[in-house]
Amino acid sequence: MKNATEFNLNEISAVLTRTPATLNALLRGLPETWVLSNEGRGSEGKDTWSAFDIVGHLIVGERTDWMPRVRIVLENGEARAFDPFDRFAQSRESEGKSLEQLLDEFTRLRNENLAALRALNLQPEDLNRRGRHPALGAVTLSELLATWAVHDLTHLHQLSRVMAHQYRDVVGPWSAYLGVLHCAGHGA
Amino acid sequence: MKNATEFNLNEISAVLTRTPATLNALLRGLPETWVLSNEGRGSEGKDTWSAFDIVGHLIVGERTDWMPRVRIVLENGEARAFDPFDRFAQSRESEGKSLEQLLDEFTRLRNENLAALRALNLQPEDLNRRGRHPALGAVTLSELLATWAVHDLTHLHQLSRVMAHQYRDVVGPWSAYLGVLHCAGHGA
Repeated sequence: MKNATEFNLNEISAVLTRTPATLNALLRGLPETWVLSNEGRGSEGKDTWSAFDIVGHLIVGERTDWMPRVRIVLENGEARAFDPFDRFAQSRESEGKSLEQLLDEFTRLRNENLAALRALNLQPEDLNRRGRHPALGAVTLSELLATWAVHDLTHLHQLSRVMAHQYRDVVGPWSAYLGVLHCAGHGA
Repeated sequence: MKNATEFNLNEISAVLTRTPATLNALLRGLPETWVLSNEGRGSEGKDTWSAFDIVGHLIVGERTDWMPRVRIVLENGEARAFDPFDRFAQSRESEGKSLEQLLDEFTRLRNENLAALRALNLQPEDLNRRGRHPALGAVTLSELLATWAVHDLTHLHQLSRVMAHQYRDVVGPWSAYLGVLHCAGHGA
């Protein structure tokens, strides 16, 4: 595990680059059980997400969150707070689309954003520049970029859990050994 | 979520088929930070696994666990208990290999096992046949096959968590929002 200052842009880019192909390999063409079911809970399970919802959320992040925030840090520093991330925008934006369309859209947007990130040609001193998160306060550019990659991983973690949930009763007594079935989601 | 009897072999095969490509897309060519680091804990962190260890464990499962147990159910029923799964065999078997070699080996073994499963041409009545787990007692063939797929998902869940752990301090205050950083592993 790295300490707080050991950010490495190549390592972060290596994860960000791989996420579209990972989601394609995992999800494209899967039967609907795995793609459209969520984890239930609450009234009619409306407070948990399906694989379809998760890919939609990642698209919203590519469009409105990550690179726009990078630009705010570089152009405005702490003078202008980031716009809040709308965690529910995907229900509108994904409407009427297929999972395959969402996977294509995510792949295209991620590739465009990584090209834009490379074009910035960030230097080590840029990574310490600060921005202002509307709830968390002062953050650095390296924290923002690391969060972009770990946010991919948190949704891969959620995705494996949402999928496993669909068969939680079907595995019988083995559920005791399957850690993913004992994950409560950590509020993410 | 399905009830305990809604096993569907096509749905389970769809997950099992995709895991090698998912792991390839996620892991092949990644910098060592993501591949060789574990989650620490305990004396020198020897009780947690790296991505490399996880792929090694999946290989051991393909070789010694899943299809051998399917055959024991079909040939011996409850008369012969399954051999216990050696959860630490990968440390010997992976020694001296690269992650790329392990990914290739897992892909080959999984494809061979799925071909062998198809060749069994299992019928609905076969899925209720019973075997005997050395610790859990009576289990059915459908429970075993569902567990094979959910076991893939539990290790994808673990993999995303192990990778995220490497940058847990680098994301700064955003760690509060990243559920994967608050997953304690559920003992899996």
